[in-house]
Amino acid sequence: MTSKLDEIINRVVDEVQKKVSFEIEASGRHVHLDRATIDLLFGVGYQLTPKKWLSQPGQYASEERVDVKGPKGELKNVAILGPERNQSQVEISLTDARLIGIKAPIRESGHLESTPGVTLINGSQSVDLDTGVIVAQRHIHMTYEDAELFGVKNGDVVQVRASGARPLIFDGVVVRISDKFATYMHIDFDEANACGLSKGLRGTIVKCSDAYADD
Amino acid sequence: MTSKLDEIINRVVDEVQKKVSFEIEASGRHVHLDRATIDLLFGVGYQLTPKKWLSQPGQYASEERVDVKGPKGELKNVAILGPERNQSQVEISLTDARLIGIKAPIRESGHLESTPGVTLINGSQSVDLDTGVIVAQRHIHMTYEDAELFGVKNGDVVQVRASGARPLIFDGVVVRISDKFATYMHIDFDEANACGLSKGLRGTIVKCSDAYADD
Repeated sequence: MTSKLDEIINRVVDEVQKKVSFEIEASGRHVHLDRATIDLLFGVGYQLTPKKWLSQPGQYASEERVDVKGPKGELKNVAILGPERNQSQVEISLTDARLIGIKAPIRESGHLESTPGVTLINGSQSVDLDTGVIVAQRHIHMTYEDAELFGVKNGDVVQVRASGARPLIFDGVVVRISDKFATYMHIDFDEANACGLSKGLRGTIVKCSDAYADD
Repeated sequence: MTSKLDEIINRVVDEVQKKVSFEIEASGRHVHLDRATIDLLFGVGYQLTPKKWLSQPGQYASEERVDVKGPKGELKNVAILGPERNQSQVEISLTDARLIGIKAPIRESGHLESTPGVTLINGSQSVDLDTGVIVAQRHIHMTYEDAELFGVKNGDVVQVRASGARPLIFDGVVVRISDKFATYMHIDFDEANACGLSKGLRGTIVKCSDAYADD
């Protein structure tokens, strides 16, 4: 009986846990390409080939990859995420940025004004982007349903506790809500290493007045 | 008169700030060597040459450097910090650990039981360490005077707010108190990138009941 009861309790705890938390995923370096850039790198009208579907519905890592070259170095075989976008965007970590010699700002996806450029290379083809290199600001993709559950609005900036091997509370986490999203928090590999992320780690939104004192 | 007043106010604010916060420094990858390892790498009785004095009194980066080799790769020209210690210790980031193929645990300095080994190389000389590779647990070196000011004891684990370009609150920060220390918080480069560290950034100890709820 006890083990049966334990099992029930564990399942209830798991289910409740899922209602108050969300999975944290680490995004590796990647690029999003616009039509013009795909045409130049892979040929006019070329279509990216989905290889692996990602947590966000309709988003995929493609079979195709690209080298990202800055003034001091190169990142080889960087993932291209599809589908194509209106504007090419290169998302790297600060570790990557230092390696290739680019001063990339912390930005939300799509906020590319005054960002530095970089060279994308596929074999003998290359494209110089004038702009588009960012370090992604930590964020949560959220469904409308979960937003109601967590009591947050689109654009809210929250704190998220990550109790991994190196516990910390991420501040300045942007909440982005869309019916096209699944609820996941995204951080980069520097942040994943800083919190000791392991697969399945879940984050909780912390509302703590002291922690908001500077705002 | 106003600018004179502004100047006075700014100086008072600066001074008060220094009393409630401490500088956060990023530690790059480095090694500490014991006598036997120095003998093997550099010759019997060899003395490390101080090149740059560090924030902790008596600690220095030496002229000498060493390559750190794991099963999957090598870190070239890694700093050797002096003076020599009773036990060799290699401190790398999780980014470094993945690069060279070593599963390094998060540990306090000196806690080397069951840690993995690595090969240290100086030119034609090399030493296989059986043990000693860690990712340093984030910590604050503190003077007794500051410990009293901050209300902490040796071994306390606190939360520290870092309001840099990527604000966050580091949890699980160990306080180490000694009359040989100067008060500085040390994090590694993954953590520095995760918080957007820039030179001179200061941390404050956060006491927040919500944040301690898991303890």
